[in-house]
Amino acid sequence: MTTVPSVSYSITVRLEVPAGSSAVSSLTAAVEEASGLVTALDVTASGHDRIQVDVTCAATSSVHADELVAALRSVPGVVIGKVSDRTFLVHLGGKIEVKSKVPIRNRDDLSLIYTPGVARVSQAIVANPEDARRLTIKRNAVAVVTDGSAVLGLGNVGATAALPVMEGKAALFKRFADIDAFPICLGTQDTDTIVEIVRCLAPTFAGINLEDISAPRCFEIEARLRTVLDIPVFHDDQHGTAIVVLASLINALKVVGKDIGSIRIAMAGAGAAGHAIAQLLYSAGVRDLVAADVNGVIHPERAELEEIPTWYLEHSNPRGVTGTLRDAVAGADVFIGVSAPNILTAADVESMADDAIVFALANPEPEIQPQEAARHATVVATGRSDYPNQINNVLAFPGVFRGLLDAHSRSVTPEMLIAAARALAGTVGDEEINPAYIIPSVFHPGIAETVATAVRESVETIRKVADETGEIPAVPV
Amino acid sequence: MTTVPSVSYSITVRLEVPAGSSAVSSLTAAVEEASGLVTALDVTASGHDRIQVDVTCAATSSVHADELVAALRSVPGVVIGKVSDRTFLVHLGGKIEVKSKVPIRNRDDLSLIYTPGVARVSQAIVANPEDARRLTIKRNAVAVVTDGSAVLGLGNVGATAALPVMEGKAALFKRFADIDAFPICLGTQDTDTIVEIVRCLAPTFAGINLEDISAPRCFEIEARLRTVLDIPVFHDDQHGTAIVVLASLINALKVVGKDIGSIRIAMAGAGAAGHAIAQLLYSAGVRDLVAADVNGVIHPERAELEEIPTWYLEHSNPRGVTGTLRDAVAGADVFIGVSAPNILTAADVESMADDAIVFALANPEPEIQPQEAARHATVVATGRSDYPNQINNVLAFPGVFRGLLDAHSRSVTPEMLIAAARALAGTVGDEEINPAYIIPSVFHPGIAETVATAVRESVETIRKVADETGEIPAVPV
Repeated sequence: MTTVPSVSYSITVRLEVPAGSSAVSSLTAAVEEASGLVTALDVTASGHDRIQVDVTCAATSSVHADELVAALRSVPGVVIGKVSDRTFLVHLGGKIEVKSKVPIRNRDDLSLIYTPGVARVSQAIVANPEDARRLTIKRNAVAVVTDGSAVLGLGNVGATAALPVMEGKAALFKRFADIDAFPICLGTQDTDTIVEIVRCLAPTFAGINLEDISAPRCFEIEARLRTVLDIPVFHDDQHGTAIVVLASLINALKVVGKDIGSIRIAMAGAGAAGHAIAQLLYSAGVRDLVAADVNGVIHPERAELEEIPTWYLEHSNPRGVTGTLRDAVAGADVFIGVSAPNILTAADVESMADDAIVFALANPEPEIQPQEAARHATVVATGRSDYPNQINNVLAFPGVFRGLLDAHSRSVTPEMLIAAARALAGTVGDEEINPAYIIPSVFHPGIAETVATAVRESVETIRKVADETGEIPAVPV
Repeated sequence: MTTVPSVSYSITVRLEVPAGSSAVSSLTAAVEEASGLVTALDVTASGHDRIQVDVTCAATSSVHADELVAALRSVPGVVIGKVSDRTFLVHLGGKIEVKSKVPIRNRDDLSLIYTPGVARVSQAIVANPEDARRLTIKRNAVAVVTDGSAVLGLGNVGATAALPVMEGKAALFKRFADIDAFPICLGTQDTDTIVEIVRCLAPTFAGINLEDISAPRCFEIEARLRTVLDIPVFHDDQHGTAIVVLASLINALKVVGKDIGSIRIAMAGAGAAGHAIAQLLYSAGVRDLVAADVNGVIHPERAELEEIPTWYLEHSNPRGVTGTLRDAVAGADVFIGVSAPNILTAADVESMADDAIVFALANPEPEIQPQEAARHATVVATGRSDYPNQINNVLAFPGVFRGLLDAHSRSVTPEMLIAAARALAGTVGDEEINPAYIIPSVFHPGIAETVATAVRESVETIRKVADETGEIPAVPV
């Protein structure tokens, strides 16, 4: 677990201390002695002999937060009042809301937006269903669909407990791409039922974002939905991650001066994310990728192949490597981990080719600590926000959907994902690029717009080619 | 069809006329001669010899709107520019949006509302699922669910064409009760599939509002959902209408000084709304209601009983009336129509008891024109906004759901609906009540709050009784 105090375990303690010059500094000292970090300190009321103070401090865990409260209580003269948990405070009442965009002030307004006026809009959509993209929320609506089977690092917590995560995702869609996303947490984990439900929900939405659905069910659900729906279906855990990894790799290769077509990649993890990353890297020109899971390197003679997508056997491991992850890593130019904490050693990194690139993306604890990896690798990236080069899906999914929606796209293809990755990589200028800056922060301005433009143009190009040749647009991812 | 110019057929015509004293008045005159109504006239630009004017006028139909444009074009010197349809203008881009309620300004914010902070909120919900009502949108979220099979007066237009109606409903939920409602337009009309989908959608919502689902499927869908869900299921076409009818009847009976237990009611229509109204009236004390449909009065020996809910045979028509609607109406104190235009004559109303009450609710054309009914009835109400006493569901559903949500109710019972109706009736003070004012306007302040309080208190009373007696709260409606 993380050992640095984190804002996500941040508490605000309201307390009273005797008025006096050393009162406040003794509070800060108490928190620091207990290994906490005071991030804000506000005197919220003051009297002749006592003052009221709100102390906000970051802890490393809930238990540690309790220890910080105890430390404050032990300061002479302190009376502890209300203790608030910032994470829970910000969640109170939910994180999103549905707003009316139209004024409803009088009967005239009512008759325009509801009956009888709305009947004319319905009739227009009957006559031309595509008008729904002009005259309804469908224009801008994405369903964030989960069954709660693989939520963050928590596992199978079910639909209701997944809701705050999906709501957070919807808030991010709005913040970064002005998209109206709504959480759909399904009380079923049956593949057939999920496919049928999402098929039936599609009329309201212009895109489906699958989220936190466990492998291998997520593969089948996505594949089947793509065949039955005329709106794009995107599994962010797979394709969002793959876009950001590809973008980061493009820039990391610039740093070390290697070519994507001639590098060797070792991958740890062959789950949903790993599968999508590997496929997208091949679509983008990679030709030598060796993947390993807990049972070792994936090759056709290995045992435990039942749940391994056939793609790996058909495309990966061209040199027929066998053995463990260690055998795949030796001599590799790039390591990409989407697996488990602390499975890679400094010696493993040392065994890689010169100017090695290490993407250790297991969350919250990476495959190798970044400081450790940096001893022998030239470029290191993780999923963590407290080190340089954070590989974060928020860099991709808002812009991707913005582009798909703006283009009225009916599908998502590898071409579109590659276009997104290249655009994202391009947001780091050649003069900015360096080992500690291969990918921008999610708050870097204009990221989503840049990605959206690339995706929209890709959709339009594919549509144009399809119109001219009469061919179905490229194979779905 | 309606013959009065209506704002729902309102257009704005941008045009240029020669500058001059009579230019503008000739425009108004042209529209009036063509039987249109000028509702706004703005000079939007002015030059030496020409001015630009936006003329907004109400028409009776789309064809009539075209005629008004032609009439304006025929005015000497007029050059017509852009013609905008106000109904379509207000629908452009959709009527609702999803907003983030939390700031997302930096990595600290991200780590609170999304990973890693949100994981703690998910874990709290795993430990106590009821926390979802505190920490997520579930607290305040209602699904507006339709299959598009019986949309307004349009019939079976399907899911996509139903979307603007459901979006309008969501906008009304927000406007009148600050509820976050989201349209769910299902691409299926199979009863089993709809029940299963709504069951699986329930984790995200605190209430289900069924809308515009055709009878008799709506009865089965609602009944089955009520047995499988632990959140209230309300079919607005039925129960919303029933509440407003009961409230209106309570006040109409005050006007004529009759008692609900001793009146005779004749009803036209035994569809979804009729069935719910009849049931609620019986729950509220009515004992003599005779219903008729296109095949005549409902009684046990009649033909064509297959689709008639058994409730009618078990409860209605205590005097064994046979024949047609006319036979039911003769001598009745109250007529309630939820059927078809112009099926009731002035002579029928004349045949009713003294101080007759006529609720002619067919939309947009009532069972009898209100002026006609008023010749022989003391109180007349319709569903139309252009006559006094509009019986409009917007008076009920926002407050009902606000009360159900605030009380964390797991069901809807007749007691709650009656409480809502009584509270709604009570918003018209005894000093205000008169034949032209038995029910307030939907814009009357405080309606939803009053209804919500009554529903919340009803839920709490039922819960208290259940806790004390160990009995399951009252039978679902």
